[in-house]
Amino acid sequence: MIKQASSRDKKTIVLITDFGERDYFVGLMKGVILNINPDVNIVDLTHSIPSFNIKICDFVLSNCYHYFPKGTIFVVVVDPGVGSKRKILLVKTKNYYFIAPDNGVLTSVLEKEKPFKIFSVENKKYFLKKVSATFHGRDIFSPVAGWLSLGVPCEEFGPSVSSFNKLDIESPKIDNDRVIGEIVYIDKFGNAITNIGINTVKDYIKDKQLKLKLGDNEIPVVLRNSYSEGRKDEIFLIEGSLNYIEIASNKLPLAQKLNAKEGERIEIKWK
Amino acid sequence: MIKQASSRDKKTIVLITDFGERDYFVGLMKGVILNINPDVNIVDLTHSIPSFNIKICDFVLSNCYHYFPKGTIFVVVVDPGVGSKRKILLVKTKNYYFIAPDNGVLTSVLEKEKPFKIFSVENKKYFLKKVSATFHGRDIFSPVAGWLSLGVPCEEFGPSVSSFNKLDIESPKIDNDRVIGEIVYIDKFGNAITNIGINTVKDYIKDKQLKLKLGDNEIPVVLRNSYSEGRKDEIFLIEGSLNYIEIASNKLPLAQKLNAKEGERIEIKWK
Amino acid sequence: MIKQASSRDKKTIVLITDFGERDYFVGLMKGVILNINPDVNIVDLTHSIPSFNIKICDFVLSNCYHYFPKGTIFVVVVDPGVGSKRKILLVKTKNYYFIAPDNGVLTSVLEKEKPFKIFSVENKKYFLKKVSATFHGRDIFSPVAGWLSLGVPCEEFGPSVSSFNKLDIESPKIDNDRVIGEIVYIDKFGNAITNIGINTVKDYIKDKQLKLKLGDNEIPVVLRNSYSEGRKDEIFLIEGSLNYIEIASNKLPLAQKLNAKEGERIEIKWK
Repeated sequence: MIKQASSRDKKTIVLITDFGERDYFVGLMKGVILNINPDVNIVDLTHSIPSFNIKICDFVLSNCYHYFPKGTIFVVVVDPGVGSKRKILLVKTKNYYFIAPDNGVLTSVLEKEKPFKIFSVENKKYFLKKVSATFHGRDIFSPVAGWLSLGVPCEEFGPSVSSFNKLDIESPKIDNDRVIGEIVYIDKFGNAITNIGINTVKDYIKDKQLKLKLGDNEIPVVLRNSYSEGRKDEIFLIEGSLNYIEIASNKLPLAQKLNAKEGERIEIKWK
Repeated sequence: MIKQASSRDKKTIVLITDFGERDYFVGLMKGVILNINPDVNIVDLTHSIPSFNIKICDFVLSNCYHYFPKGTIFVVVVDPGVGSKRKILLVKTKNYYFIAPDNGVLTSVLEKEKPFKIFSVENKKYFLKKVSATFHGRDIFSPVAGWLSLGVPCEEFGPSVSSFNKLDIESPKIDNDRVIGEIVYIDKFGNAITNIGINTVKDYIKDKQLKLKLGDNEIPVVLRNSYSEGRKDEIFLIEGSLNYIEIASNKLPLAQKLNAKEGERIEIKWK
Repeated sequence: MIKQASSRDKKTIVLITDFGERDYFVGLMKGVILNINPDVNIVDLTHSIPSFNIKICDFVLSNCYHYFPKGTIFVVVVDPGVGSKRKILLVKTKNYYFIAPDNGVLTSVLEKEKPFKIFSVENKKYFLKKVSATFHGRDIFSPVAGWLSLGVPCEEFGPSVSSFNKLDIESPKIDNDRVIGEIVYIDKFGNAITNIGINTVKDYIKDKQLKLKLGDNEIPVVLRNSYSEGRKDEIFLIEGSLNYIEIASNKLPLAQKLNAKEGERIEIKWK
């Protein structure tokens, strides 16, 4: 049961960046936002996207945004091109707003959120007075999010644009006896989240004998229903919470065991 | 002086987990909560409970909860059994609510918060529509906390239960000339918090010559009144902020010095 | 464009400490604040000031505070003298409040925020009932911030004082052909922020051939306009977001490359 959001509800601004937890960058963004709208919820989705890793940010954002309230404004700052001539996009979809550099980081989210309108953020009236060449998250993204949360219409921030940069994201390849995908994200527990959607392969792998190929290792694996079903020291597959196949090992970080890395190719074979 | 909390005060939901700071798990929990109640304070107590360490979570929670406002809802997700048949508990005490897996993590808190009522969280009406087997923190704990903060009565979430799982927590042993306890938690500064309550031993150790035994080391120590009283490079005892004996060393992480570890046995001897 | 803050706006309390992210210290401070004022914004500026490093805290705070709304209360807990007889200061400037130990941590902020009034926080009525000797952040700083945010006047917390401790902060030295400064802060991306204000040297270094001396290394450098202008593997200078010269290297942490450290002396030569 989800409460019907009302337009008078307090607005939420979500931050997702590669700024890490230890510096003052995120705190400054919050200061700038609260200076404009002191009555908004600011939520950290994560600040630990690996530095400049647009692809991982695209993956995390596109699998998480729909858990947030309608009307939420997402501020996405993984921005290796800061200070260059890359555009800053403001995207309005049916239920959400996204502010992000035009570097492909919204590729997957906009696949899911069609139709949408895109604006190029250019109106300096809504920027900080002094805009640095190194921290647009503070000087442009945050004040724009603040004003947007106060009800300033998207058209105010700049002209609408019809195209934007996209990442070239490879889908997993399904053959007769195997699926080839990659590890997209390794979480704190050492579970390796792949790009293989559970629904694409469930029928193939159900009740089959499975082998996982990862680097030079090829090991037999089972599809478990929960982490706690995994046996001691076993490496197993599981339907992860983002609906992708995860490679897990019970209470022992997988990455240490198999030297798994984000971006690494994997195969799951069945017979 | 503490303000008298009023029932119209904004509610607070506190999160304590072993999810770490770097992933999107905590952000998702906040999104789900705000989707139900956008006008609630969400506070991170800590997300750095060591993975699956129920005992440390029990210690931290039971020594911290009473600093929060009356009516606070604590969401406790240290949950190695997620997806198994373990129950999810909702506990109502005189002043607080706790939502936690039935794995013993509430043992010490419920020692202190008697009397209480326990409910088994089972009413799917208050869960997310799709419940994963790997992330009940997002799919069950968070929405239940959100609805509870809106005033849904505890009885709505499931039947009341009369028993729950408890940890077997060893108390320190006091002899004629020594107390035997253990290190429960090592903080960021390297101070080692023991399970030896200051009040249980203060009369014994006051103005006595003390020795600390830790592993193979036995070193003379003094009970200091503040960190700044400690001498350069000295290892000393102090009454920590949670009212337990702490082993500290001035501006130099103790753990590095003595290789102290959480769970390690210590002795303090006097004569 | 910045909205004109109104006195009815929700108040903001900003925390800056050396407590790190992993312990329960910061969570407890928030609990104590919300217990007094449940309707306040609490923002983490950073909790990763290196342990006891008053100088870095002074630098970060004094370059960040003005991004926050008028009326913001800054709670500064880098406090190696906790439990000793050091004073706790409450400073009121035209637009802000600062609560901090009297150890010099407000030196640079008060250079910029003249005139100001200082009070010594002594009125136990506004402390927690039990004050530990090890965690004044929870027992004194937080409740005082909570009450202040509710409108209790500064005079209530203790007597006004006329002097306070200052750090001896060395300014960069500009000669005919060089400026000598130091690295104050290394950020998550490995950029080294110096204490050399861009405005003090811009005219000297503009369009000049530059050399950077750092330890035993002396390397030719260019002043770039943005990170993305830097060439692959190049080490370059840039005007950082806090308006100081930064030493950066494109997508490769500088500190690893040159073994740069906070506090290290650097020279920039021109001809």
